[in-house]
Amino acid sequence: MSTPVSQGLAPGAMLGILGGGQLARMLALAAADLGIRAHVFAPEADSPAFDVAARHTVGEYEDEAALARFADAVDVVTYEFENVPAATAAFLAARTQLHPGARALAVTQDRLSEKTFVSGLGLAVAPFRPVDSLVDLETAVAALGRPSILKTRRFGYDGKGQVKIAPGSDLAEAYEAIGHFPAILEGFVPFSREVSVVAARGADGAYAAFDVCENEHRDHILAFTRVPARLTPGATRTAIEAAHRIGDALGYIGVFAVEMFVIGDGESVIVNEIAPRVHNSGHWTSEGAETSQFHQHVRAVCGFPLGSAARRGRVEMENLIGDAALRWRQLLAEPGAHLHLYGKRDVRAGRKMGHVTRVVPEKN
Amino acid sequence: MSTPVSQGLAPGAMLGILGGGQLARMLALAAADLGIRAHVFAPEADSPAFDVAARHTVGEYEDEAALARFADAVDVVTYEFENVPAATAAFLAARTQLHPGARALAVTQDRLSEKTFVSGLGLAVAPFRPVDSLVDLETAVAALGRPSILKTRRFGYDGKGQVKIAPGSDLAEAYEAIGHFPAILEGFVPFSREVSVVAARGADGAYAAFDVCENEHRDHILAFTRVPARLTPGATRTAIEAAHRIGDALGYIGVFAVEMFVIGDGESVIVNEIAPRVHNSGHWTSEGAETSQFHQHVRAVCGFPLGSAARRGRVEMENLIGDAALRWRQLLAEPGAHLHLYGKRDVRAGRKMGHVTRVVPEKN
Repeated sequence: MSTPVSQGLAPGAMLGILGGGQLARMLALAAADLGIRAHVFAPEADSPAFDVAARHTVGEYEDEAALARFADAVDVVTYEFENVPAATAAFLAARTQLHPGARALAVTQDRLSEKTFVSGLGLAVAPFRPVDSLVDLETAVAALGRPSILKTRRFGYDGKGQVKIAPGSDLAEAYEAIGHFPAILEGFVPFSREVSVVAARGADGAYAAFDVCENEHRDHILAFTRVPARLTPGATRTAIEAAHRIGDALGYIGVFAVEMFVIGDGESVIVNEIAPRVHNSGHWTSEGAETSQFHQHVRAVCGFPLGSAARRGRVEMENLIGDAALRWRQLLAEPGAHLHLYGKRDVRAGRKMGHVTRVVPEKN
Repeated sequence: MSTPVSQGLAPGAMLGILGGGQLARMLALAAADLGIRAHVFAPEADSPAFDVAARHTVGEYEDEAALARFADAVDVVTYEFENVPAATAAFLAARTQLHPGARALAVTQDRLSEKTFVSGLGLAVAPFRPVDSLVDLETAVAALGRPSILKTRRFGYDGKGQVKIAPGSDLAEAYEAIGHFPAILEGFVPFSREVSVVAARGADGAYAAFDVCENEHRDHILAFTRVPARLTPGATRTAIEAAHRIGDALGYIGVFAVEMFVIGDGESVIVNEIAPRVHNSGHWTSEGAETSQFHQHVRAVCGFPLGSAARRGRVEMENLIGDAALRWRQLLAEPGAHLHLYGKRDVRAGRKMGHVTRVVPEKN
């Protein structure tokens, strides 16, 4: 509606999104609410986000000709996944705005960099050691004890690239199991549950955190998120402030999630990992908060003011994994349930097909 | 995700939408939430709904070859405007499901049919007479008195095709002003304000009305909607039941709006007109109701269960007409305001560019 000026865009702008899954899809839908068009770039021809995007490109993330055309066609680029290749990020950042920036990707793509960065901010993390050989692993296990967890430094998600070192575990087998990749060993933390802070940092440095939410995993995949989390007021403050410090230190622009372990009965938290993107544990915000994480991310990366992160009640988000999505008709008929389906053609075990939110207003 | 069975569709289905404006756009966005893809058919190459649709066709509504391809490519057809040509509706209905059906279009496209239909249900309407000649007009004015309003039977909207017959008006001039088209004369009703009932009727005959809303027009274009309307409980019941009777009598499937005049200080209502589609006065439901009118319409035309029409608080919807949309940044920064922009490239006077909803929770 008017010419984009310097950093800040205006309605009518074209938002480029790398990745074509459900997160990109929900970003494109939120962008549309604000009059922003989406151009989705993804390798898979049947990407769910293509169905709601003004433009799309089927391309590999290494295809520089395709990336150059994409960069020329958009006003800003964001992404739905943290494993954007560093070369791709650098290539795009040289041609257009990229938010969140290359530093957020570099830090969070590598568990060692991430842990080093977070502990360098004075925030509590599990004890960790780098592991680049079997000898390193033996030394690390001697230092951190058993049980402990061996994790690849890169490309791990939903429990992949991890192996537990139990009292009887054979270390050579464990190192074999993660494919001899550069790794870290994390000491065991006796946590009672997992929470996350989903927050946004604006182009102007503004910070808005959604309320801390509690996450329940099944088979290493998020199954339920409930808000508010069972945390003491002190631990809640610590969690929100930890995410704030992380966002500031990264010069972050956009929505991010910080997963944390809860120690004891909610008295304290330690940082587990950072996701430089909208996050499954923030899906509750679609109906549960004044501004959804998707709208908030679009606002941030476009240089718009952040919206209110205020919560609307007690909220539960249930992931629909695999054939759980076949319950769609029952869920549509359930009073108070808000169904979201991702438009994926094939139901497969372990595949995230959709989610449901349920909001119960709280009395003031 | 499974094969559509008889009338009822399933997620993954393709919803055809005639018309490519903001209503089609918001229908396509709602459909996406439910895993339904949209195929938008519209004559204008820069239709705002194309930006969020999986497929689109640029075509004239009279182009039977294009319509046939469209019908073959979708599972059900709906529309965003009531002036779908009867031949187009019949052509599509013979090839695929069309909801709402041809009867709803036939009745509501013609003010005389509409008024006759509504009064035939025993519902109050303004007194009216058909006008097919200047002699008819003279007879009608003698019967209904002045002031009264001469309206074309077809293709009127936003105050177009209407002329007021005041005490001094020349009748020949008035008849000239509406182009000698078939018309009706409506007697003057001393109404205090305008309200509407936006409601849905499901494929199973279920009925769900949103709360009655009050509409404020400027220059014959809706400017504000506020909910709840200032009506007595009795008049509220009458309004909701009138819409219910209209929906049943039309065998209606989908969302519709019934505009009504309020008599006195809210003691009674009379029916003004019916819109067989989602309606601008229902935009408040996006944040103001448990289910938006767009989600509700998609549910109904796909044969899914209707959602809850419960209201979330006191709601105001403000239309952004013309350069009011240039306030977008200020509106994004306003606490509690939810901005919706339609992605229209050019700001023009009188053009609906977007809207804002504001919801204030009510104490229980």
